[in-house]
Amino acid sequence: PFVLQLDEISLWPLPQKFQSSAVAFKLSPGSFQIVHAKQSSAGPSCSILVNAFRRYFEYMFGDLKKHEKSRKKVYDSDLAELQVWITSFCSLCVDELSVDEPSAVLKAANVWGALRGLETFSQLVYRDDYGANNINKTDISDFPRFAHRGILLDSSRHFLPLKVILANLEAMAMNKFNVFHWHIVDDPSFPYMSRTFPDLSQKGAYHPFTHVYTPSDVKMVIEFARMRGIRVIPEFDTPGHTQSWGNGQLNLLTPCYSGSSPSGTFGPVNPILNSSYDFMTQFFKEISTVFPDAYIHLGGDEVDFSCWKSNPDIKKFMVQQGFGTDYSKLESFYIQRLLDIVAATKKGYMVWQEVFDNGVKLKDDTVVEVWIGNKMEEELQNVTGAGFTTILSAPWYLDYISYGQDWQRYYKVEPLNFPGTDAQKKLVIGGEACLWGEYVDATNLTPRLWPRASAVAERLWSDKSVTDVGNAYKRLVQHRCRMVKRGIPAEPLFVGHCRQEYMGL
Amino acid sequence: PFVLQLDEISLWPLPQKFQSSAVAFKLSPGSFQIVHAKQSSAGPSCSILVNAFRRYFEYMFGDLKKHEKSRKKVYDSDLAELQVWITSFCSLCVDELSVDEPSAVLKAANVWGALRGLETFSQLVYRDDYGANNINKTDISDFPRFAHRGILLDSSRHFLPLKVILANLEAMAMNKFNVFHWHIVDDPSFPYMSRTFPDLSQKGAYHPFTHVYTPSDVKMVIEFARMRGIRVIPEFDTPGHTQSWGNGQLNLLTPCYSGSSPSGTFGPVNPILNSSYDFMTQFFKEISTVFPDAYIHLGGDEVDFSCWKSNPDIKKFMVQQGFGTDYSKLESFYIQRLLDIVAATKKGYMVWQEVFDNGVKLKDDTVVEVWIGNKMEEELQNVTGAGFTTILSAPWYLDYISYGQDWQRYYKVEPLNFPGTDAQKKLVIGGEACLWGEYVDATNLTPRLWPRASAVAERLWSDKSVTDVGNAYKRLVQHRCRMVKRGIPAEPLFVGHCRQEYMGL
Repeated sequence: PFVLQLDEISLWPLPQKFQSSAVAFKLSPGSFQIVHAKQSSAGPSCSILVNAFRRYFEYMFGDLKKHEKSRKKVYDSDLAELQVWITSFCSLCVDELSVDEPSAVLKAANVWGALRGLETFSQLVYRDDYGANNINKTDISDFPRFAHRGILLDSSRHFLPLKVILANLEAMAMNKFNVFHWHIVDDPSFPYMSRTFPDLSQKGAYHPFTHVYTPSDVKMVIEFARMRGIRVIPEFDTPGHTQSWGNGQLNLLTPCYSGSSPSGTFGPVNPILNSSYDFMTQFFKEISTVFPDAYIHLGGDEVDFSCWKSNPDIKKFMVQQGFGTDYSKLESFYIQRLLDIVAATKKGYMVWQEVFDNGVKLKDDTVVEVWIGNKMEEELQNVTGAGFTTILSAPWYLDYISYGQDWQRYYKVEPLNFPGTDAQKKLVIGGEACLWGEYVDATNLTPRLWPRASAVAERLWSDKSVTDVGNAYKRLVQHRCRMVKRGIPAEPLFVGHCRQEYMGL
Repeated sequence: PFVLQLDEISLWPLPQKFQSSAVAFKLSPGSFQIVHAKQSSAGPSCSILVNAFRRYFEYMFGDLKKHEKSRKKVYDSDLAELQVWITSFCSLCVDELSVDEPSAVLKAANVWGALRGLETFSQLVYRDDYGANNINKTDISDFPRFAHRGILLDSSRHFLPLKVILANLEAMAMNKFNVFHWHIVDDPSFPYMSRTFPDLSQKGAYHPFTHVYTPSDVKMVIEFARMRGIRVIPEFDTPGHTQSWGNGQLNLLTPCYSGSSPSGTFGPVNPILNSSYDFMTQFFKEISTVFPDAYIHLGGDEVDFSCWKSNPDIKKFMVQQGFGTDYSKLESFYIQRLLDIVAATKKGYMVWQEVFDNGVKLKDDTVVEVWIGNKMEEELQNVTGAGFTTILSAPWYLDYISYGQDWQRYYKVEPLNFPGTDAQKKLVIGGEACLWGEYVDATNLTPRLWPRASAVAERLWSDKSVTDVGNAYKRLVQHRCRMVKRGIPAEPLFVGHCRQEYMGL
């Protein structure tokens, strides 16, 4: 019963169940309304919905002239309204959108589902040959295949102005992504302005005033994301990837030695000093209050042991602890203490796969992020075999570019394609498209991310059976033009044009 | 005697001769002036200079607050003015810029040299720690190594809004490019609005109103380019790459056959009909008046013979002409007549290398563009050996992207690195960076082109000996930030930041 009319509409990501007929209704911008259903448990006091109603009304009719919007006359064949009905009840957690005379009804278990349904509704609206807004009689049942659908942006290798982050949150919502994994600090710079340790950004950012995220900026990102049903999970990666932390926090990093004397350079966080843990305790206490999400990403990837190996105090500590020369034990020693510190803030944590690989004892609710492309299936098997939830980002490092339509490669990934039981497969809760920051900043980030990340969006939302690249191409071409029309400079897939080209530069 | 102070200034492309001292002068935006030198043969009636004075004043001081510009007080150590002296005399054609008290003097043989010198002067100005504008005592002698320094943009595979073209002309001037090779039409669309044959765009553009270049648009591009010392060479590529022409011009293209009947598809321009040549005569008569440059690019690349081979009339013609089954002879037959048609308009022409390779008789002043990467050196040897001028684009197809700093690959090319006499080397008059349009449009073209094309700019301008990639990196990092500051979204080379990040989206 899938009757796709691809010439007219272009749903992305494709809903789980979709049925439409050739019967079309007109939408008059002057009279059409998005309203709370009478039975809904949400009303005008729900700012998330009120904001979303306005946002989607703008997307659908925002480009129309004033006089077109003021036509109040209603015809028989008009769709008068969209009723949004929050049921606050989730049996199978399937949300439903029914477009029929005289009203369309969107029935969702909660506001987050309603946001996705509003996006779907807006995607159903199309212009006919006379420029009139149409929508076909349609029935949709929908739910995401995976719960965690993330985008990683890196604001350390290049500072990303707030404007860029917000625009990408908008694009995420258009693609039903629901997690912004904010890799906010790293070796090159520390733009996060900490209230507890202001020197971290004062001395660790590219510039202490212009290249930082103030507490107000961070609040704004979180609120802007919340309005769009997007969680913000900040990553504060330690003990490696911390060069910029050392500028503003004395004695935090390990002094590297050249022979018998300090070389003046520094390595990972110094794991043998109590002061390091005192610092982390205070720092993550702040982070746990600033970021409301239940999870914090603690990193733990790519720890370089060479500096630790050079340092006599570290070597002495290794002997004392009986670690021999296995520095991954020292790494685990650090991570273990850090995890306990963060667990005490009542937050859950995510970590990169090395933390699991090194045998660190993890809380049951830890999410392990699999990022190494080599032996990815084996890793998924191991992580889920050990009973941990996991998300996959290995096949979706979008910072790697190549000539041509690489979105197809991202699209063809099947996340559950690894040996394991049904119970293991259920532990894969989603994935992330990662755009590391070595080669992107405000000038090129958005077109490089979209619509390539849209391929990942559909893989994480739609049914496993949705794998037809030819069909995806046709819909994605239109979806990217829709993003362009909504102000997102999403790059072209191939030769062609949009009715409305990008108006920016 | 090259004393580069890379922390402060970052000239790009590097001038031929450069000497600076630590002595710095201040520039007060409130009193500093760019003026015509008393001896100059140009004055206030020279709109190219008047426009350029304003443009470079804006680049240097445009971001300053009003009160900073209004400070009129002049100090002893101030640089009062830049005198621009057009000598209208070119012995060695070396332009000179001398920055010293109380005035800087830019001595150029003509306005085009003055434009390059103004760019150089603006690149010498830097902000000190207090935000004051400084310029060091400097002497520069400069001239371009190659005369033809081009950028090819393709407005057929994707329509490029005027705004995008103009912005890239601005970026070209910042990099001392002087030729805009406008690959304006091709198979997918015909956006050029012809006065003689309006149906070509009416039926061949992506959209007859929104996706076309009107005569006024074309004029604007030419004038905008002229103000910046940039020639506009339009390319109307035939007989291949002409699918879009066929929509608006009946019987122009060859009907392809499937067995004994027409298949409904069309091939290259039909070379056996007089009507084809009548059309070309009228068409290029218009083009020769619309575009003032002395050259037109006539294409001639990648002609697919399969359609010609299928057509019985063509086959009959081949026999009549005694071409046997060598369809490159038919191609040459067409091109030869086309070249004669264009020659009659008094224009010179450029062609892609195939035209030369196929042995077409070319006018002495033809420019052959070498674009095929394979056996490039051999081709340069052959073309120049036959006495033709040539430009090189083969190593600079910037539409091919890859992860990392591919600008270094473009930078390392030595255009004269082929076997040949000095006389042959002299026939290489330059090169072009080509950004074909399959994967770029308004959303991503500008950051994809810059600063990658800047690598080509320096190769074509600076001395052959300027090959130090490390030094180039340091200057190019600053040059790209300068472009960003001037409103061009030039992408980053690698990890880092600009004092002023890109403010657009």
